[in-house]
Amino acid sequence: MMAPRVNVDRLWDSLMTMGKVGALSNGGCCRLALSKADGRGRDLFAGWCREVGCEVAVDQVGNIFARRPGRDKHLPSVATGSHLDTQPHGGRFDGVYGVLAGLEVIRTLNEHDISTKKPIDVIVWTSEEGVRFTPPMAGSSAFAGKLETSALHETRTLDGTTVIEDLRAIGYLGDEPVGVWPLAAFVEVHIEQGPILERSGKIIGVVDRVQGGCAWKVRLTGEDGHAGTTPMNSRRDACVGAARMIARLNELAAETDIDTRITVGSLELGTNSISTIPGKAAFTIDYRHPDARVLSELAAVMRRDLSDIAGRHDLEITFEVLMEKSPVAFDPKLVGVVEAAAGALGMSHMRMLSGAGHDAMNLAERVPTAMIFVPCKDGISHNEKEDALPVDLAAGADVLLQTLTSVARIV
Amino acid sequence: MMAPRVNVDRLWDSLMTMGKVGALSNGGCCRLALSKADGRGRDLFAGWCREVGCEVAVDQVGNIFARRPGRDKHLPSVATGSHLDTQPHGGRFDGVYGVLAGLEVIRTLNEHDISTKKPIDVIVWTSEEGVRFTPPMAGSSAFAGKLETSALHETRTLDGTTVIEDLRAIGYLGDEPVGVWPLAAFVEVHIEQGPILERSGKIIGVVDRVQGGCAWKVRLTGEDGHAGTTPMNSRRDACVGAARMIARLNELAAETDIDTRITVGSLELGTNSISTIPGKAAFTIDYRHPDARVLSELAAVMRRDLSDIAGRHDLEITFEVLMEKSPVAFDPKLVGVVEAAAGALGMSHMRMLSGAGHDAMNLAERVPTAMIFVPCKDGISHNEKEDALPVDLAAGADVLLQTLTSVARIV
Repeated sequence: MMAPRVNVDRLWDSLMTMGKVGALSNGGCCRLALSKADGRGRDLFAGWCREVGCEVAVDQVGNIFARRPGRDKHLPSVATGSHLDTQPHGGRFDGVYGVLAGLEVIRTLNEHDISTKKPIDVIVWTSEEGVRFTPPMAGSSAFAGKLETSALHETRTLDGTTVIEDLRAIGYLGDEPVGVWPLAAFVEVHIEQGPILERSGKIIGVVDRVQGGCAWKVRLTGEDGHAGTTPMNSRRDACVGAARMIARLNELAAETDIDTRITVGSLELGTNSISTIPGKAAFTIDYRHPDARVLSELAAVMRRDLSDIAGRHDLEITFEVLMEKSPVAFDPKLVGVVEAAAGALGMSHMRMLSGAGHDAMNLAERVPTAMIFVPCKDGISHNEKEDALPVDLAAGADVLLQTLTSVARIV
Repeated sequence: MMAPRVNVDRLWDSLMTMGKVGALSNGGCCRLALSKADGRGRDLFAGWCREVGCEVAVDQVGNIFARRPGRDKHLPSVATGSHLDTQPHGGRFDGVYGVLAGLEVIRTLNEHDISTKKPIDVIVWTSEEGVRFTPPMAGSSAFAGKLETSALHETRTLDGTTVIEDLRAIGYLGDEPVGVWPLAAFVEVHIEQGPILERSGKIIGVVDRVQGGCAWKVRLTGEDGHAGTTPMNSRRDACVGAARMIARLNELAAETDIDTRITVGSLELGTNSISTIPGKAAFTIDYRHPDARVLSELAAVMRRDLSDIAGRHDLEITFEVLMEKSPVAFDPKLVGVVEAAAGALGMSHMRMLSGAGHDAMNLAERVPTAMIFVPCKDGISHNEKEDALPVDLAAGADVLLQTLTSVARIV
């Protein structure tokens, strides 16, 4: 049988329409998880799913399951999906593409009147980005049983609300118990968010593993003081301490190896006054590497070096582990199905590692899981400039369509 | 005539009562300028002034003038005062002591039924600290004609309101035109906010000059990016750039001389997300020195070194000058009156420089001005731990009383 193909314009139109929800002035989006904009984005998606005949269920942490029924009602679903929440200055593709490519697969199957034996689900995982509250990938972590529903409900957001309050406020505190929705497999399609495919001239990345990623919160305590009177040598300046630590972390990343990533993305002072020496500071460290052994060596060196700097500046230091994700290998058989689909469609492809974390990392602990990457412009993501070609996005959705129908069985 | 003395307990009680307005949990105060707490503090002070027979006037930038009339209605006032606004984690004495010592002088004069030829004013200057909005010493700058009333009115606060809105909201948008209230002299009493008096074992600091203080805002622009995928050597990380700059500023202060002070008190990233490389950062630099020549040399070195670091990290950099105050010398004759008053009262005293900036710096451009310092515990200020001895505070108020009556003429 001739493989059906997705509609490139329809997929692009859906992405652009979703991009208007929480649109920023430079072409990007801000739909922080469980904000009002996230609520509007979810409503838009759920409405589209109902229009194409899906049953839409929501679990108790707000994960959305849009199901296209299969011929056999007793079989678990073959699922795809990603997330609709964004970074503060995020793009229109990160996460959103994986969700709307899933919707495009269903629209294409409907158009060609193709049924599958197993149901096909498109899932929206709650708060992948972890900006308004931590941990990142909260919804899929809860689904995988690695985060208690009650603990997530009580988590405070940056706005001082709790997650359960926000779920209620936007109408996404669902009834479904978390983690019991029956899945047979999970395949997530995503922009690469890095430069490898673009530089290699390939359209499809067959992702067989994800590098490990950890995050800490570091808190420093010194002493507030007057900027005009306190001699330099009797200060306990938490801002200067933090600055020396961040400079050291940056050196350490360069010293380690080319695969090391260390980022301080969040930094706040206890006072924010021109003329007060800040007695408190807090910052996050995001560090990643494909090798679990290097990750644990990095952790030890960072703890030692930052403690030394704190000592030299007479600061107290504490470390809180926010996230600890080991490198994840995807299901070899399902990765093979993705690779075969790309091959059958005649698309250039390559095996690769994911540098970013994804909900698929959590799903891999529960069901056979794989990922598909497509190129994005200049490898830029978490930035309003994030961009991708309609033809590449359609190619990824075509591979997704082939993979899902292959596992869900057309015949 | 035997010099009347202030009432140590009454002064202390007033300080403790004012300290309850905006009280923090560790003994300090937060009454940011023109906040609701600042409004309540102003109301408390104005009520006390009316109770002791003062006429209370307010000018168009919220400066409060509480006048004890003199025998000659046509003469300008001999004025004292300071500010009631505090740092975010401020103490109970910085500014407040200068205002309430003035009130205590008036209470003492009333108690002893002493009249003066010239009126005596106690003034509250608006927003000395410059935390909710800049510049610091806004009210006294406007009074001295260095800041337009309309520009100050339109200034945005950290809460997004404008100064004129806030003045109206707390009831301190007064009728008096700014800068025309007739003054003959200004004497401000203040805690030292540094360790010199305490270490010298002296009770009274006869302040004859104030070191220069300047402030800049530095803004960095790089590029947001994904923390997991963007290679270290292709980042334009504004947080790392800011960190290296702050470390360099700290070295520069140590390299220059023992009188140099450089402080980064405020630092904000454009994004605050664990997994996004921050493409924007902004921080303030507060730098001070008693010598105008050293100040301008420091400015040149900072501009050069920070621009170099920005270049190495592929960041754009801009410098905005928030404040530029040259060192100020007080009126030699009035300083002599303060010194004679301390001597006549038999109090140990010393000439000294002020490390902190004060409203008196602005007043010195308009009228003969001087300052009186008293010790504070461990030299700590801009900190909830700020503390002072009742007996030292009363000593400063006694010197103020002698100085004011000497200039305002009892006989």
